[in-house]
Amino acid sequence: METPRMSESVVYGRHPVLELLKSEGRVVTRIVIAEGTKGPQLDEARRLAGRAHVEVARGGKDELDRLSSGANHQGIVALCAQRSFSTMDEIVALAAARKEAPLLVLADGIEDPGNLGAILRSAEAAGCHGVVISRHRAAGLTPAAVKASAGASEHILIAEVANVAAVAERLKRDHGIWIAGAAETGDLRYDRGDYTMPTAFAIGGEGKGLRPLLRQRCDYVVSIPMAGKVSSLNASAATAVLLFEARRQRLGVAK
Amino acid sequence: METPRMSESVVYGRHPVLELLKSEGRVVTRIVIAEGTKGPQLDEARRLAGRAHVEVARGGKDELDRLSSGANHQGIVALCAQRSFSTMDEIVALAAARKEAPLLVLADGIEDPGNLGAILRSAEAAGCHGVVISRHRAAGLTPAAVKASAGASEHILIAEVANVAAVAERLKRDHGIWIAGAAETGDLRYDRGDYTMPTAFAIGGEGKGLRPLLRQRCDYVVSIPMAGKVSSLNASAATAVLLFEARRQRLGVAK
Repeated sequence: METPRMSESVVYGRHPVLELLKSEGRVVTRIVIAEGTKGPQLDEARRLAGRAHVEVARGGKDELDRLSSGANHQGIVALCAQRSFSTMDEIVALAAARKEAPLLVLADGIEDPGNLGAILRSAEAAGCHGVVISRHRAAGLTPAAVKASAGASEHILIAEVANVAAVAERLKRDHGIWIAGAAETGDLRYDRGDYTMPTAFAIGGEGKGLRPLLRQRCDYVVSIPMAGKVSSLNASAATAVLLFEARRQRLGVAK
Repeated sequence: METPRMSESVVYGRHPVLELLKSEGRVVTRIVIAEGTKGPQLDEARRLAGRAHVEVARGGKDELDRLSSGANHQGIVALCAQRSFSTMDEIVALAAARKEAPLLVLADGIEDPGNLGAILRSAEAAGCHGVVISRHRAAGLTPAAVKASAGASEHILIAEVANVAAVAERLKRDHGIWIAGAAETGDLRYDRGDYTMPTAFAIGGEGKGLRPLLRQRCDYVVSIPMAGKVSSLNASAATAVLLFEARRQRLGVAK
């Protein structure tokens, strides 16, 4: 039996562990696979671990349950170095290196780890250069968020900051990035924003929306037109809609 | 202490119970509010229940935990008649009554209740006329799915069917609805489909994608262009992107 060390982090689930091994972004200390489980993804994990000289151990179900704090680990757990967060400069530099206009998400006060994971997954899939998350009153980059991101959290730059509004101000002033808030009360239909420009989408927490200080920093606030009786989209669904509108515009409008 | 009767269903959480009371679509038998809890949403639930002559009881935390099978009930549980599913004819008739081209989601084999709930929420918000879900090997309309839909499940028509591929065939033949599959391997960029036409989006389950029989029934298969290293969006995020592209087209393209 082993316990993760203080400086260690745990990643569980077949897809997340595979992405962790592929990303090469973090030092993986050890993989633990549940006794009696098999499958192509576990074979692939074993192969990748072997290539990276990572120890692979067999463990009882009890041990995996404990390592993953009882979450659905699908028979595989990785112990690894804690994820290091990125700086705003690194995120902006990545956009420059790719010769792309910066595309960011400022996720302020997302409380549900599943939602945070879904935002990271959509952001990575849409080609975002980074996601800024708030350190306080928000879901952190916990194992549950990593799992919900289906491994995308290993591939996207993430900055954890104390004050998202201050970061928005800096992005605007120092890097010429437009801050596009998202709110039901936004005054611009979301598909009328020009996201081929350097853009950071500011997204508020579930139920609460954009906080006033962050909203004040926005250059404009967009809304997604609702048709039904329930007045809002889930924060991660709204983020996906905005990010893929940006991606659509950046790829060039169809036809 | 009471136990839900066989024919009863349970809805929990502040937002879902409020939407249940507002929808008037189901007979609510009784509301149970946890002792010692208060807040504007609970007051509103009490007011709506009073207007509808629904009994409101106080219950211990244990009782609410048991009624909601240990889920996060936020101090309020409703006992109500089981939701009745809609027929395809009712869904098509709703579109006709609204003088709109039908817009549907065929959700085939969505296994995670959170994802199913998120799909229902996005579908309702985008003005869909109905969602078709598969009866087997899929998440049903469980309390967890209802909760994840934030109450939207009370407002949108849902058909539960044994064979989604057969339903797709019938929608095509009898109602002239185009079946637009969604898959990473789709050959049409998603924003090149014309969703002002009568459209049903066929969405496959997490990880597995569209099943071959359903894919064969599709008139065309679209893909959402990915930029990152993780090759797919979450099923509910992809559905949100497609539905709001449809909504965007139906509202008239911007500028």
